[in-house]
Amino acid sequence: MIRPATPDDFIQMLPIFREVVTGGDTYAFETDTSNEDAYAYWFGKGVKSFVYETQGHILGFYKIIANQRGPGNHIANASFMIASNARHQGLGKKLGQDCLRHAKEMGFRALQFNFVISSNEPAVRLWKSLGFREIGRIPQGFRHKILGYVDALILFREL
Amino acid sequence: MIRPATPDDFIQMLPIFREVVTGGDTYAFETDTSNEDAYAYWFGKGVKSFVYETQGHILGFYKIIANQRGPGNHIANASFMIASNARHQGLGKKLGQDCLRHAKEMGFRALQFNFVISSNEPAVRLWKSLGFREIGRIPQGFRHKILGYVDALILFREL
Repeated sequence: MIRPATPDDFIQMLPIFREVVTGGDTYAFETDTSNEDAYAYWFGKGVKSFVYETQGHILGFYKIIANQRGPGNHIANASFMIASNARHQGLGKKLGQDCLRHAKEMGFRALQFNFVISSNEPAVRLWKSLGFREIGRIPQGFRHKILGYVDALILFREL
Repeated sequence: MIRPATPDDFIQMLPIFREVVTGGDTYAFETDTSNEDAYAYWFGKGVKSFVYETQGHILGFYKIIANQRGPGNHIANASFMIASNARHQGLGKKLGQDCLRHAKEMGFRALQFNFVISSNEPAVRLWKSLGFREIGRIPQGFRHKILGYVDALILFREL
C-alpha cells in the first residue's frame, strides 16, 4: 500500500498539501505556495517520494532527500503529510517506519527533521516513539496560526 | 567597502567560492558544484548578498536569506566566504557585524546558522564572540576532508 510516488499522483497529493499548509500549525509554507513550488517540493531534484494508497485513494505521503549537499549528504531529511480524514489511524507510524527503512536502504547514516513544531504533540510523540531524539531547539522558530510564536525542534535518529 | 552584490561581481566571487568548497573543511557543497548552482546560491530568489571590496577587488562576501518559508520566515540564515589571502585580518568580524545589522534592518528577529562545522574553530569563536549560542549539534553531520566525520553546530542569535 506504500509505493514510490509518480508525477500522476500529484493531483491527489495537492489537496492534502493545501489542507496541511492552510492549517498553519505544522509546516513553514506560505499558504499561497504555488502548485509549481509544491510539485518541486515532492518531485524535485534529489527527492524520493512515497505514497500510501488504498483503493485508488492516496491518504498520505512522505519524501526523503539529502539534508545537505556534498560532504553533508550522508544524513537524510524527510517530510510527511496525511489527509485530515486519515489521521489517528496509525498511518503516520506506518509511513515513518517505511521511511526509516527506505532511508537506510538508500545508504543514509541518519535521518534528521529540521523543523518539527513543538506544539505538534502527535508528531513529537510519534518521532520519539520511533527512536528520534531532540538535538536542537529553535526558539520561537514558528509563527503558529493560533498559538503565535512556538519553538521548532530538530530531531535526529541514526539508521 | 561592504556593499550589495551585483551579478557582475560573480566573476570575482566564483574563484573564492571554488577555493572554499575545494577546501572540504567548512561547507557542505560538492566540489564539482556547477557555476549555475553557485550563482543561484548567491543570487537566487530571496537571497541578498553583500561583498567586501577594496580597490576593485572582492575579498569576501556574505548572503542573507529567510531560513524557512512562510510562518518560519522571521528567522534569517546567512553564509560567509572569504578569500584565503584575506583571512586573519578581521574581515570575518566586519562582515558578521554588517550581516547582523542588515538582517535586523530587513525585519528578521533572529539569525540562525544551520551547519557550522565544529572543527572550524575560527568560525565558532567568531560567532560566539558576536553573541551567537549553540542551539543544536548534528552528530557527525559533516565528512571533513581530513578529519573524517565531525559534528555540525546550529548557532543562533536574536537581533
